[in-house]
Amino acid sequence: MGEFKRLDRTLAYQGKVLKVYSDHVKVNGQDSNWDFIHHNGGAAVIPVTEEGKIIMVRQYRNAVDRFTLEIPAGALNYAEEGGLTCVARELEEETGYRSENIEWLITINSWPPFTNEQVEIFVARDLIPSVQNFDEEESIELEEHTIEELVALIFRGEIKDSKTVAGLMAYAVKCEQE
Amino acid sequence: MGEFKRLDRTLAYQGKVLKVYSDHVKVNGQDSNWDFIHHNGGAAVIPVTEEGKIIMVRQYRNAVDRFTLEIPAGALNYAEEGGLTCVARELEEETGYRSENIEWLITINSWPPFTNEQVEIFVARDLIPSVQNFDEEESIELEEHTIEELVALIFRGEIKDSKTVAGLMAYAVKCEQE
Repeated sequence: MGEFKRLDRTLAYQGKVLKVYSDHVKVNGQDSNWDFIHHNGGAAVIPVTEEGKIIMVRQYRNAVDRFTLEIPAGALNYAEEGGLTCVARELEEETGYRSENIEWLITINSWPPFTNEQVEIFVARDLIPSVQNFDEEESIELEEHTIEELVALIFRGEIKDSKTVAGLMAYAVKCEQE
Repeated sequence: MGEFKRLDRTLAYQGKVLKVYSDHVKVNGQDSNWDFIHHNGGAAVIPVTEEGKIIMVRQYRNAVDRFTLEIPAGALNYAEEGGLTCVARELEEETGYRSENIEWLITINSWPPFTNEQVEIFVARDLIPSVQNFDEEESIELEEHTIEELVALIFRGEIKDSKTVAGLMAYAVKCEQE
């Protein structure tokens, strides 16, 4: 392995949500400045209905400039919140269901070349009707699909959100294994 | 659906690789400023050896502050390069193998809440020995694993890179389907 050392980390830009840093690093003997984006992390959930369908969220994503179909997810309210607490809240807010049967499936780092954001992904079953409650700047529609439909949409390039692809494919593999 | 309109996009910070913008948006009647990170995009590859093993890359990732095990990948040299050209180059540079049998598997958006980065993920077979050639600031080691080993590492939370988890799980599902 080569040599890597981070010498300094300087806040370069404070965005609305993101903190962007310039990291002064020494890599293979050379000085360089690498981009680093701080994010508290988030959690996502695959909510499975009694019929075995998955509740998905359709919303407009400004950064990719189109509507996406994603599993419900949200950011931690604070760094130490914990994925399970976060996902229980986001499940209820976005889908209008609660669950007392939420199990960890996988964890992803969204974009390791640039950010520390980590997303814990869970599966929620035995859904209990409750009330939706969107954030002020959220605007979403719900859709229910079978896992087979969702896998086909991924292989047609119609679902691309990384946490959604990772979570659904992991769910498909796990269902196959059980 | 609620109302969304982007009124303006202003460069807020030019990093080493990333361009960070502040987007002035109108969402559900409210004015807001959202973070947007521009990235040209990238490509990644699952290189499958004659024995059916997958060649993986272990490297230090500054943003997550640890060593990660990832599928080989790289950024497009310019926005219009195309994923196949990029991935053919990255395959050779990182693993020391070429391939004339590279097939598209899935495409992901790494982090749709914040960046337009898209990564096309391919499967490369019939590997032909060539020569490794790292970028100046790269330092990687290669490992070969079966897909079963890699799936187990994901379910143990030891592989978390989103493109790697999405790509390997999609590959596992596709192998099952064939």
